[in-house]
Amino acid sequence: MTADGPISTSAGHIFNLFREQRVQTRRELIALTGLARSTVTQRVDALLAAGFLREEGVNESAIGRRPKRLVPDYEPKTILAADLGATHGRLAVLDGSGRILAETAVESRIDNGPVEVLGRTVGHWKELLHQADRSAGSVCGLGLGVPGPVDVTTGRLTQPPIMPGWDAYPIRDFLANYFDAAVFVENDANLMALGESLQVYPQLPSLLFVKVATGIGAGLVLDGRIYDGFDGGAGDIGHAKVSAAEGKRCNCGAEGCLAAVSSGAALARQLAAKGHSAGSSRDVVRLVQEGNGDAISATRDAGRVLGEVLATSVSLLNPAALVLGGDMALTYEHFLTGVREVLYSRTQPLAIRRLHVGTSQLGDQAGIVGAAVLVREQVFSAAAVDRALAVAPQVPRQQPARLTAASDT
Amino acid sequence: MTADGPISTSAGHIFNLFREQRVQTRRELIALTGLARSTVTQRVDALLAAGFLREEGVNESAIGRRPKRLVPDYEPKTILAADLGATHGRLAVLDGSGRILAETAVESRIDNGPVEVLGRTVGHWKELLHQADRSAGSVCGLGLGVPGPVDVTTGRLTQPPIMPGWDAYPIRDFLANYFDAAVFVENDANLMALGESLQVYPQLPSLLFVKVATGIGAGLVLDGRIYDGFDGGAGDIGHAKVSAAEGKRCNCGAEGCLAAVSSGAALARQLAAKGHSAGSSRDVVRLVQEGNGDAISATRDAGRVLGEVLATSVSLLNPAALVLGGDMALTYEHFLTGVREVLYSRTQPLAIRRLHVGTSQLGDQAGIVGAAVLVREQVFSAAAVDRALAVAPQVPRQQPARLTAASDT
Repeated sequence: MTADGPISTSAGHIFNLFREQRVQTRRELIALTGLARSTVTQRVDALLAAGFLREEGVNESAIGRRPKRLVPDYEPKTILAADLGATHGRLAVLDGSGRILAETAVESRIDNGPVEVLGRTVGHWKELLHQADRSAGSVCGLGLGVPGPVDVTTGRLTQPPIMPGWDAYPIRDFLANYFDAAVFVENDANLMALGESLQVYPQLPSLLFVKVATGIGAGLVLDGRIYDGFDGGAGDIGHAKVSAAEGKRCNCGAEGCLAAVSSGAALARQLAAKGHSAGSSRDVVRLVQEGNGDAISATRDAGRVLGEVLATSVSLLNPAALVLGGDMALTYEHFLTGVREVLYSRTQPLAIRRLHVGTSQLGDQAGIVGAAVLVREQVFSAAAVDRALAVAPQVPRQQPARLTAASDT
Repeated sequence: MTADGPISTSAGHIFNLFREQRVQTRRELIALTGLARSTVTQRVDALLAAGFLREEGVNESAIGRRPKRLVPDYEPKTILAADLGATHGRLAVLDGSGRILAETAVESRIDNGPVEVLGRTVGHWKELLHQADRSAGSVCGLGLGVPGPVDVTTGRLTQPPIMPGWDAYPIRDFLANYFDAAVFVENDANLMALGESLQVYPQLPSLLFVKVATGIGAGLVLDGRIYDGFDGGAGDIGHAKVSAAEGKRCNCGAEGCLAAVSSGAALARQLAAKGHSAGSSRDVVRLVQEGNGDAISATRDAGRVLGEVLATSVSLLNPAALVLGGDMALTYEHFLTGVREVLYSRTQPLAIRRLHVGTSQLGDQAGIVGAAVLVREQVFSAAAVDRALAVAPQVPRQQPARLTAASDT
């Protein structure tokens, strides 16, 4: 891990020592790192000039002035977040620390294609910025969650099964017309996993998040980072093959997929065929909450089938937490109970003895919270801060060398 | 990741900058890090005194002396490695860089319990040290692979299904009676994954290794590190449930496990029931290599069933490589062909379009190579070097501060 990291004495790294509250003053920084005083002065000045740090309260006491504290300056920076599902979305404006300033939920069909969906998203963001009294110029980063596999290096989707028109669409270029800030696109389940892991279970080293709404997707966070896989395809368990789906056609074109029996869309079709009014995963949730016997029974069965795939997943990964989210997590405990039933009967004791199993604590906000966390971690990473400083207006040059004691550690 | 890492200007971190060949001289170190000259002098002196670095060739040229190069001093350090399988083991003595100096393969039944197995292991190591002309005092670390789940923080096994007597046995305490060096115990498939990943596919970010011998286990390496899981149980796919094993009793006590149909032991039982002379996975391999039709057909079927579990695993993880090892990888391509057949038919294109699928290149040596790599990465990590220096004899104190120019960067 050390091999490719940024040099750990760069300004960006120093910023992160302040961010993680490992140091609060220049003096503590010198003591902790052994850096030359001149180096510290130069890098801290650059961070102050670029607005990453600000100085706080000179403490004037009877015994003299105490050194000024340096703190990260998040508040003026704005993050835009969007969690776009298959049929509905949620958008928010947050400050740099991740505090939600304004948010809204909208009906939005992802299959309307990128131009319409992104155009509306920009419109909503502008309205929310206005509500939050923030300027477009204050935006430091945009985070976008989508229900498909993403190549995070390009910010483009890769062969998404339920998102016609989005394959390889240049999302960043589209948004660059409206905001001058970095754009991070991620799979929605990955973002939910990140939000849940960092905000709800920061003490746990690994978390597998399973989103069941119109489709089924999973996100994996290991040591506080999204695990994307080699092609951004990690977590794509919706098309794992299960015997209960044998011969059943899935939206992806194949047969036998988990999503063909356990997704909200599959359940809606199944209930509609029995004469119930169900067109979407939300309708299924409504029916379950109304106490509809067919809906409850079908939901429980769907949970059991998902449990088969999760038993194999948990055996393979031995994660610390398994969190269920998306609409189907709102079916009281019916869906989760089906999952547990099969999960516990098909795993070895070691894999589950300390496994936390539950539904999402962040609920509907998991996606936008995760998007904001992702933006924050990226925009304030050592490498990103170093890049930002490289293009920032130059700070005044250092004074010429002067004589002083050498042991400035 | 930055939050909990060692302070990146510690002696251990500096050692790793030399180890990764990012710097070669004190001057380059100062230029790269911005550290004060006095700090660099102090830390490099400590590393030289403790034998982590040595100075190399002063280059006397016409235009004057060039600064001495500093290089990691691996050669005098010795690593002991053992890969203990269910029925046979392999042991080796390596130098600190991972070069094999002496090795041997032995018959060794893991179910004879820790006292007998570890006692014999120590005996073999002593013999190999003698062969390699190394002293026990030169041993810097021991790496031990075992066919069960390991709590790597304690170096003890956790409820291993096929290792009676080993549950929670204090392996480190036993070995401390013979060698004064750190002991690292790991699951054997994890070590094979590490060896294959770092020695054969260093350019790939993730690798799933599946060992099929007497039993079935998997190891996962992400970004050059073993992923162990929350309780050391990651990779335990041998007891994933498959429909082909329905009603079949597994060694673990449960029914329907993958290992009950696809392991070498299961194949041997199946072939013995048909009158063939087969008592172990090696016998199955022999029969296949002899062209026995029943053995080939059963092996292919077993590969297909394993392929079901691996299809779900690959969908979940989207790894860069899937490597098959253990005895069953030696059945020419029969086992792997069965795996591929089902794997490719049950995954989405994205998960497999760039997936490397093959058999282990390190073969029988995968385990000991992985053990040596693990020891090397641990013993020479920044944190371990810092710990070693903290207990090393103190180097002479720094000179008192003297006057010099401040901009010593």
